[in-house]
Amino acid sequence: MGDTQDQMSLLDSVNAGIELAIPVAHRMGIRIVELGEGYAAGIAPLEGNTNHLGTLYAATLFGVAEILGGVISVATFDSSKFYPTVKDVQIRFRRPAKTAVRATASLDPDAIARIKAEAETNGKSEFELEAQISDETGEIVATTRGTYQLRRHGS
Amino acid sequence: MGDTQDQMSLLDSVNAGIELAIPVAHRMGIRIVELGEGYAAGIAPLEGNTNHLGTLYAATLFGVAEILGGVISVATFDSSKFYPTVKDVQIRFRRPAKTAVRATASLDPDAIARIKAEAETNGKSEFELEAQISDETGEIVATTRGTYQLRRHGS
Repeated sequence: MGDTQDQMSLLDSVNAGIELAIPVAHRMGIRIVELGEGYAAGIAPLEGNTNHLGTLYAATLFGVAEILGGVISVATFDSSKFYPTVKDVQIRFRRPAKTAVRATASLDPDAIARIKAEAETNGKSEFELEAQISDETGEIVATTRGTYQLRRHGS
Repeated sequence: MGDTQDQMSLLDSVNAGIELAIPVAHRMGIRIVELGEGYAAGIAPLEGNTNHLGTLYAATLFGVAEILGGVISVATFDSSKFYPTVKDVQIRFRRPAKTAVRATASLDPDAIARIKAEAETNGKSEFELEAQISDETGEIVATTRGTYQLRRHGS
């Protein structure tokens, strides 16, 4: 397969995994649209996710950003050995989101190397991940900063 | 009607309002179970809200706490004049939630008086709200601190 087909196949598999493992995220319309070592992007639709002001509901904005830490972990670290958990998340709502949104996040190579080494040595490693959530005009509507932990299975 | 019937009627009306205004929160099973001037409690079921570890999904924990700022505002301030928005929320996940959860939050009388006065004078007022999320054994599984703003309609 070519790179584009590989990416489609990876995304299909990750989105099917989310549907199975976190069905409520799938029902919110959260989908991963880009994924690779150290980066991910997700989307969420406005339809079905509106709040009392007709804009995108806070928990959906939270969800589309928070999930990136999990899928980046699966795409970047050895998921046969380690699984991701989230310890805390700060979300700042900058302006109302009046369209579908896209959330992006990335880990730099130094962080990836540190996390891999710590997880192998200690069975766990913590990392921070910042995400930006943009509307369809490209305006940032919210930002998050989360602390995640990669943990060895069974711990 | 007696106090219990009044409370039931208020809760029915608030939950019907959430179903209409924030359908995704209703679909997550988030329900308000106590509400009065300056306080609220909400619940969310484990069923339908599990994550990849079989515990309660982060965005549902976020949702059941975040919504308390909105419903406390509606129950405490003049909703014919003012509506609530959320500016930021910090959520700390203390331990995995393996059962349904209950979130509680309250505003003290001094804060209520300040917010009422500021909103009348300035058309808006900001307030902080802390929520505790507990599992069915009474253990705190997560805590949140949110900054909300009460705003005059049309602003």
